[in-house]
Amino acid sequence: MLAAVMHGPRDVRFEQVDDPKILKPTDAIIKLSATCICGSDLWPYRGLQPIDGPAHMGHEYCGVVVEVGREVKTVRPGQFVVGSFCISDNTCPHCRFGFQSSCVQREFMSGAQAPYARVPLADGTLVATAELPSADLIPDLLAASDVLGTGWYAADAANVREGSIAVVVGDGAVGLMGVLAARQLGAERIIAMSRHETRQRLAREFGATDIVSERGEDGVARIKDMTRGVGADSVLECVGTQQSMTQAIECTRPGGTIGYVGVPHGVTFDGQAMFFAQRRMLGGPAPVRRFLPDLIDRVLTGKIKPGKVFDLKLPLSEVAEGYRAMDERRAIKTILTV
Amino acid sequence: MLAAVMHGPRDVRFEQVDDPKILKPTDAIIKLSATCICGSDLWPYRGLQPIDGPAHMGHEYCGVVVEVGREVKTVRPGQFVVGSFCISDNTCPHCRFGFQSSCVQREFMSGAQAPYARVPLADGTLVATAELPSADLIPDLLAASDVLGTGWYAADAANVREGSIAVVVGDGAVGLMGVLAARQLGAERIIAMSRHETRQRLAREFGATDIVSERGEDGVARIKDMTRGVGADSVLECVGTQQSMTQAIECTRPGGTIGYVGVPHGVTFDGQAMFFAQRRMLGGPAPVRRFLPDLIDRVLTGKIKPGKVFDLKLPLSEVAEGYRAMDERRAIKTILTV
Repeated sequence: MLAAVMHGPRDVRFEQVDDPKILKPTDAIIKLSATCICGSDLWPYRGLQPIDGPAHMGHEYCGVVVEVGREVKTVRPGQFVVGSFCISDNTCPHCRFGFQSSCVQREFMSGAQAPYARVPLADGTLVATAELPSADLIPDLLAASDVLGTGWYAADAANVREGSIAVVVGDGAVGLMGVLAARQLGAERIIAMSRHETRQRLAREFGATDIVSERGEDGVARIKDMTRGVGADSVLECVGTQQSMTQAIECTRPGGTIGYVGVPHGVTFDGQAMFFAQRRMLGGPAPVRRFLPDLIDRVLTGKIKPGKVFDLKLPLSEVAEGYRAMDERRAIKTILTV
Repeated sequence: MLAAVMHGPRDVRFEQVDDPKILKPTDAIIKLSATCICGSDLWPYRGLQPIDGPAHMGHEYCGVVVEVGREVKTVRPGQFVVGSFCISDNTCPHCRFGFQSSCVQREFMSGAQAPYARVPLADGTLVATAELPSADLIPDLLAASDVLGTGWYAADAANVREGSIAVVVGDGAVGLMGVLAARQLGAERIIAMSRHETRQRLAREFGATDIVSERGEDGVARIKDMTRGVGADSVLECVGTQQSMTQAIECTRPGGTIGYVGVPHGVTFDGQAMFFAQRRMLGGPAPVRRFLPDLIDRVLTGKIKPGKVFDLKLPLSEVAEGYRAMDERRAIKTILTV
């Protein structure tokens, strides 16, 4: 089949690869209904994260099961499934504790920017819908696989609840999904920090009540100003740089919580500063599997439309342009039809 | 009056100082029933934290009110009171959020290793008992002022609850109070990390179910072993060094929580390591005022005997020996009679 392979920085090719095969009895093969490009794919694309030879890209996926290994019990060919970008058995102690992204058998999904993909640990990783969803819901269901699930985890880790004041640092796709999640979890006020007009508009559509376009110290001062000097209850850090992390910490009230989901690149914390700042922190790769049944339900019942985060739709064959558009910030997130 | 003054590393003197006076209308003057030396007093004593000229030491206190400023409304002369080492108004947004140790008017108490002391913001800081407590309860009530309150916060911040597996890193007075707190908060298993026999014994008395005497990697391996490879739900970090913090993080299960109350000295966290470790963290100076009414009640009703943590009792005039004994680890914690 033809799929997306990254050969090096800014070098993504649509080329021949081997068809995926069942390698272990717990695997499933799915036919992708759609796939997409993740903000985290841009780290290696920009040369900020080394890759180890040509990499078969893509970890966000949904589709129809075409084949399962002999030990797979909960999904069967013909079913529509959504899976997490984190492969997990969903039975180990970490999974049962709700942290499937730290599963003892954790693997990170790859090779999903393709017509077909192998999903390891299918029973633990995949969630099947009762019926085949209509085509218009595919982008929403695809989003649940990572970008929505990760934004949701940011809000969950940041302890957003009924009546919270939440700040979202980062107006990328994950940040926008964080806005949506904070809204769904009952935040009273959701302040999106964004300098880009299209993203501001989308943030408002997803539930932001306020937009702050300032960054750094000015941004923090604005947040303080808007919260009577107190700071926010919950801050969702959806970038992963030292600047954004510092901004997130300083926007949070003492005793408030930072949920950080942007993979930190070059970020350090000073223990004594953190101590006296007295902020609660939880981050990590999102345990999307914990949220998947609920997220799928919210999509199928029309409560949320996370698929609106895709503002560029291309055929898989144009995957290279999809990366370029995101790298140049011409697109927030690219969905790829297969 | 004669009180404890630190002139420099290992130089604590019992000498003449001015009697405390009402300086602001929100102040109270108390006659100390007893006072004590804190583990944190050892940082400057050991020269690991600079002091700015002679320092009037002591921040743990309970006693009888002898005078109040004209704006003080909730305590009056003759009442027995316990206060937090953190002075707070208990009305600002941070206080109402339960983080009185980040009060907008926060001050740190000082000058309590003395017969009399001035307590600023008396209404917010002090909690009065209905009656004068009997003399045998004074050590227990004094403990609430900081060492118990701080151990309690470690357990609270570490999210200890009914059925938790808790690990306590640090067998100093705060760690031992953390053991007591974890027990009171319902932990099913409390593993105290301690290499000292007297402290191990006291830890068991306070509720530890297991003792681990190994440290560092060996200690972590033992904890993993005892938790079927999973790690603890809650870890109380009660030291404040890089080694103890690393040990605390590695003993915690993914999604578990570290409550850190040892003031970090030279501690840094790597953002990406924290991200992939996926631990929740909350630390800071303990908001003792939040817990005080409950802690006083537990003492008065005989549920807890935290005063057992004092294993050396000296008259205030021998305060220098009290510091020496703690510095040399001959004593866990010194109570000073006045």
